[in-house]
Amino acid sequence: MSPLGRLYGLGIGPGDPELLTLKAHRILTTVPVIAYPTLENGKVLARAIVADFIRPDQIEIPMPLPFSVERSSQPYYDIAADKIAEQLSLGRDVAVLCVGDPMLYGSFMYIFNRLAGRFAIEVVPGISSVMASAAMLGVPITYRNDVFSIMPGTLEADILRDRLSKVDAAAIIKLGRHFAKVRDILLELGLLNRALYIERATLPNQKIIPITEVDPEAVTYWSLILVPSTTQPQ
Amino acid sequence: MSPLGRLYGLGIGPGDPELLTLKAHRILTTVPVIAYPTLENGKVLARAIVADFIRPDQIEIPMPLPFSVERSSQPYYDIAADKIAEQLSLGRDVAVLCVGDPMLYGSFMYIFNRLAGRFAIEVVPGISSVMASAAMLGVPITYRNDVFSIMPGTLEADILRDRLSKVDAAAIIKLGRHFAKVRDILLELGLLNRALYIERATLPNQKIIPITEVDPEAVTYWSLILVPSTTQPQ
Repeated sequence: MSPLGRLYGLGIGPGDPELLTLKAHRILTTVPVIAYPTLENGKVLARAIVADFIRPDQIEIPMPLPFSVERSSQPYYDIAADKIAEQLSLGRDVAVLCVGDPMLYGSFMYIFNRLAGRFAIEVVPGISSVMASAAMLGVPITYRNDVFSIMPGTLEADILRDRLSKVDAAAIIKLGRHFAKVRDILLELGLLNRALYIERATLPNQKIIPITEVDPEAVTYWSLILVPSTTQPQ
Repeated sequence: MSPLGRLYGLGIGPGDPELLTLKAHRILTTVPVIAYPTLENGKVLARAIVADFIRPDQIEIPMPLPFSVERSSQPYYDIAADKIAEQLSLGRDVAVLCVGDPMLYGSFMYIFNRLAGRFAIEVVPGISSVMASAAMLGVPITYRNDVFSIMPGTLEADILRDRLSKVDAAAIIKLGRHFAKVRDILLELGLLNRALYIERATLPNQKIIPITEVDPEAVTYWSLILVPSTTQPQ
């Protein structure tokens, strides 16, 4: 019986292929099998980021996921985990590509939770879009004793208002159709003048737009609002 | 007159040299000048992480910083910024090495704030110790609608208690001599059984210790408590 393969959760960063770590690059270019989420509407960001690094002889496992949040993704992850387990059982290492970092709101965690215990798993951290956005915007996020919160724009308004009122700096992710709600809460809390908007950070089509000029209808999932700290550095 | 050099804020990640990004590695190995913080007591983590990548012909600017938080670091940053500005004025690109990510509680921000406007600055994001710790601990941090907060253990107990009571997942950094206070608050809030402790994540001397067995006297600055989300993934 051949030994089992190893499963890698590979953080590939926010979009610029040069923001892969040396370790993620090494693993990506040496494993026999790669897997990556694809959305039903055909968008495949993870694979596109690392397209230039993929070898023709690598086995690819696309993992279709429902685009609509109303549809349960559970059966999709079950199918993907089964396909990955099949390759691991054949003794092949499998790298699951994760945009950003695998442990922070990543889809890898659903594969991780299905296969942990059965196979050896190694997680390689990746650059989160949050840190990448701060770098691209050119603004320090936090100093010294600041509290920094990352929260999804999908939260209910009351929760968002409460959480945003208690932190020194914040990143609001997963904006999409929730942009107008988030913007209005920031205005109400007196935070809108500090808030910065960025789309597709580090990708060739990255956009930085003054937040008051953003068209709420045009905001995608791959956008983020950063509210940097106002702590005065010495 | 020669054109001015470019200043890079280079995130070099949490400790494992392989967690540099391809971009940070490229810049580090091609700039003529590197600068890095050193503590008065002689510890030089940033330089040690990338020691194998540094060329003998590169100019090095050590940036001494006071180890004690009671001492103002302002004059130290003034001196370091002047030395860096001198090299930039000579047309030499300078990379300032930043453990973790430059924009998240990083010392680079004090250089950034002193030199922004005078020189072109590019920030290269790095793997934060927070994401690296989750990867090493093998625990997903957040799912779906979770709010995740990063906060320093140096905060007053009342503020820590309030902020920790409102989030789904948290990382408490800068523990050092504040460990016992943080542990007691986690116990009080019923979070201690979820809390995980890690020291020097991704370094050869990394330690993972059950939090109830940690000796508060032995906790260093390079340690972290992670309280992962309890959201049930599907």
